[in-house]
This record gives sequence, structure tokens and C-alpha cells, in this order.
Amino acid sequence: MTRIYIQEVATRDGFQMEDRFVPTDDKIALLDQLSDSGIDKIEVTSFVSPKAIPNLRDAEEVMNGIKRKEDVIYTTLIPNVRGAERAAACQADEVNLVASVSETHNRKNVRRTVDRSFASFKEIADYLSGTGIAINGTLATTFGCPFEGAIDENRVLELAEAYLELGAVGITLADTTGMATPNQVHGLCEKVRDRWPDLPVTLHFHNTRGMGLANVIEGIRAGVSRYDASLGGLGGCPFAPGATGNICTEDLVHMLAFMGYDVNADLDKLINLSKHLETLVGHEVPGQVIKAGKISDLHEQPAFSK
Amino acid sequence: MTRIYIQEVATRDGFQMEDRFVPTDDKIALLDQLSDSGIDKIEVTSFVSPKAIPNLRDAEEVMNGIKRKEDVIYTTLIPNVRGAERAAACQADEVNLVASVSETHNRKNVRRTVDRSFASFKEIADYLSGTGIAINGTLATTFGCPFEGAIDENRVLELAEAYLELGAVGITLADTTGMATPNQVHGLCEKVRDRWPDLPVTLHFHNTRGMGLANVIEGIRAGVSRYDASLGGLGGCPFAPGATGNICTEDLVHMLAFMGYDVNADLDKLINLSKHLETLVGHEVPGQVIKAGKISDLHEQPAFSK
Repeated sequence: MTRIYIQEVATRDGFQMEDRFVPTDDKIALLDQLSDSGIDKIEVTSFVSPKAIPNLRDAEEVMNGIKRKEDVIYTTLIPNVRGAERAAACQADEVNLVASVSETHNRKNVRRTVDRSFASFKEIADYLSGTGIAINGTLATTFGCPFEGAIDENRVLELAEAYLELGAVGITLADTTGMATPNQVHGLCEKVRDRWPDLPVTLHFHNTRGMGLANVIEGIRAGVSRYDASLGGLGGCPFAPGATGNICTEDLVHMLAFMGYDVNADLDKLINLSKHLETLVGHEVPGQVIKAGKISDLHEQPAFSK
Repeated sequence: MTRIYIQEVATRDGFQMEDRFVPTDDKIALLDQLSDSGIDKIEVTSFVSPKAIPNLRDAEEVMNGIKRKEDVIYTTLIPNVRGAERAAACQADEVNLVASVSETHNRKNVRRTVDRSFASFKEIADYLSGTGIAINGTLATTFGCPFEGAIDENRVLELAEAYLELGAVGITLADTTGMATPNQVHGLCEKVRDRWPDLPVTLHFHNTRGMGLANVIEGIRAGVSRYDASLGGLGGCPFAPGATGNICTEDLVHMLAFMGYDVNADLDKLINLSKHLETLVGHEVPGQVIKAGKISDLHEQPAFSK
């Protein structure tokens, strides 16, 4: 049985764009329950400016308030050295850096060129050197850019190389706005796996156009075993109002578990947490298993007259 | 480029369970537009008792009212010889028979044993013999039953054989309540293709638990090239309120077209039709491409200051 690693991003990628600020204590309680659910990695929060993302203004309180478990990796997104300092002060296991493969998207997202992003990452890597905090490098818009369209796969490989040169121990290929198609995922993942067979690669999919789980299947087929997902399918894309967000953690775990993959996460706990999440954010979430039930939730057999 | 055939079921599988009766003229106009969209087959309606399914009480008017195109197959669901007579009177190209692989589901759905269903199908086949009307045999709950759970694959093959013996020219494997997993689809389709390499096989998926398009990918990989889908993702399952319905036609065509498959259907026409469908049924539909836009719908590049 192939082990597939589930990495939760709801409290970062999901909460950051909610209308409602989820109270700090509720965030901490949710994160503690996620830690208890068998999730392999949790992107807890983002050490960005509170002005840029007010919903995550409690990053320190959250990181310091959660009960950390030995076998869970607690990662945080950071945009600059100031973020690295904050993550280090909170003893994050890992920091996640993000640059877009698309120049236009990078400038739109972080107001700098991709080169300047990587120059800043070098400073971050220097700062973190010797601290024991791991670096993961995320490449946003890997499978397509909502402004530029198609992305050159060679540029993806170049930027992955740039991350590795500055000491990243893992790479995330992110389909930021849900543009990846299954064959594209397969093709690029094979190239990445051929070049760096032992590199921990994460795939980060959005289900914007319904292809999220199909893309996971193709990623697994190409040998990738780490997947970001968001409880309830929280998250989304500012350019596609009404569109669904990240692939849904419990829907992903449900599919993989019933396919016979070895996932550590406890499906029933995740389903309960996702229902609870709806009360935290104040709206329905796009996850489907919480509505339909698991495949194994059978209905009582009707009585028949003879 | 592999040709994939798209078969529309919204006006039957979708409309049958809507709260609102879609007026006959609106049905006819929608079907005419679907005919013009390049869809390969349309399941127009169901010749069942108007008491059983009031929403389809206008089956004759609809079948006689539409403009039929040479290269589209117009099929209708029929439950018995009376249905066959009605379909024949309307000169349907094909009738679609439905039995469940699960005894319990068949009794729940059509109030008879599977054996009795097939005895009735024999009468239908005899009646239709020489009329030139083709028979397609659908196996409901092929991938799982909401009452019985797992389904024996040998039983699926037996019942497919039973359909072929009475003269069916095609078989549909239907995942009636969205229980199929991608590896299961692959495995069963390979068995069916090994046994009947030249048989036109259709896969009918529901997206109840989010796996619909992933299942399509695995079906294609196993050599199946015909897929039922419902405009807007209309349809659903009475046992899973709030769950999504059939896989969505325009989301399916969107994925396949961007993967490079040869689909005859016109994606832009389907997207427009799906938006129109929302006004016909009076609620949002689950389709995602109508919300998010196509992958190729790029946003204007923002202007940057130097």
C-alpha cells in the first residue's frame, strides 16, 4: 500500500480570504483537533503583515497556543526575513516560501519580480541557516497563470532548482487558480521526479473547474505522494467568485482510503471537523462527502411485501 | 486524438427530480440547442407513467416537438412494453433499459426482482424486433449499492451478458449514487473490455462524492469512450440531499477538450446553455466551469508602475 501524505491548509489558505475573522481560540481548537486527526502536515498560518491579511493577524498567538504533536509537521507561510524571524520565534518546523512561475502573477501577488522574490528567499535561507527550521519552496501558477495563460515547464524546473540551491528540502507545485489538467499534471510530475527522484514533492490543487481529484490520481500515478488540501474545500480564488476552492481534505482522504491507499488521517474525525468548520466560517463549505456521506454509509434496507 | 462521445441526460435524469415542472416548450427549445451543440447522444425523456414521474408527463410532446439532427442519437428510457410502444410511436432511435445489479435497489427502484426486470426486457426486445430501434442496457448500481454496499463484478458481467443475449447493442455501467472509485472503474472496465472488445460501453457517473471526473479519466484509460453527463451537473440522488448530481456536461467537455481529446461538443455553447438552464430550473446548478470560466479565459494583465 502506497503511503500518501495529507497536508492541511484550511487555517492558512482557507481562512485568509474568509469574510469573517475566526476567533483565535477557535482557530487553536480546530488546529488541535486537526493534529489529533492524523494529518501529516499543517500549514498553521502566515507570518505576513496584519494589514495585508487581517484574518491571520493572530499568527503568533495561534502558533504559540496550539498543542503540537511529535509526528505532525507545523509549517507557516512567510514572505520575507521579518516573517522568518517571527516563524523562528514561534519555533515553526518549516517555513513555506511562495513565488509564482508567472512574472505577472508574482508581481500581482507580492508586488515584485520573480528574481527579487528569490533574492529575498536567499536572505531568508541565510537567516534560517543553522536554526533547524526547514524550507519548503512553493511555485504558484505552476500549471497555468490567470493572466499569462500557459506556463513554460522549463521555467518551473529552473525555479525548482533555484529553491533547491538555496537549501529548500521540499518543493510544492501549486495550481493556484485551478488550471491544471490531469495529463499536464502527469507530464510535469514525471519530469520533476526524473530530475530529482528523492525530492519530497507536494502537489497543491484547487478544484476550481472540478478537476482537483482527477489531478491527484495523475499525480500519484507519476509518483508524487504529498498533497495539500483544505478542510471542507475552503479557500478559493479572488478571480473566480463562486468557484470552489482548494481540493477538500475529507473528500481527498475519502477517495484515497476507499482506493486502498495508506493515509494516516482519520476520515470520520475529518468529516466531523468539516461540519464544525461550517459554523466557524458561517457558511456552507464545498466538500461533498459531508453532504453525501461516505461510500460505506449504507441506508437501511427497505422492507418489501411479498 | 482519441474520440470521446458525450451523451446528455439532463432532460431525463436531471429534470425528473426537479421541484419545478419545466414547460414543454422550454424543454423542446433546450433540446434543440443541445442538438446544435455537437452532443453525440441525447436521452430526451422517459416513457414512464406520468404518475410515477410527473415532470416527464410530456414525453410524447417533447419527442415529437424537437428538431432531430442526422448525427445525434435520440434515446429514451423505457420501463416496459408500454414504454416501448410509446417510444416506437415517436420513432426514438434507441431505447434505454434499466435494471440494478443490486436486488434491493432494483426492488426499491422498479418494484420487482432483477429476474422479472429481464423477463420484461425480453418482451420489449421481442416487440422492438425488426423496428430498427436499438436497445441499450443500463446496469444501475454497478459500482456499489446504497443498501447492499459492494457489488459482485461477476454479477455485473452476467447481467451485461443477459442484455446482449436479448439483443442490446450497447451497455451502460451506471454509478447511480456516486460510489465508484477510480481504481474500481479501471478494474471493471478492463474486464468488460477484455470480454467484449468491440462492445460500445457507456459510463454513467454521478459526482456525489467528488470523484466523477477522476472516474472518467480512469474509464478512458481502460478504453471506454462514451460518457453520460448532465448539463450543469443537474440530477442527484434522493438518498443524499444537497449532494451534487450527475457529472456535469460542460465541466467534462472542458476537461477533455483541454486534455486534447477529440470531443464534438462545442464548449462555449454548452456553457451558455448551462447558464440558461439555471433560469429553467430556478436554482443554481453544481457545474463549476460556468462559475470559474474556462482555463483559457484569461484576465486582463494588470498595469504595473515602474
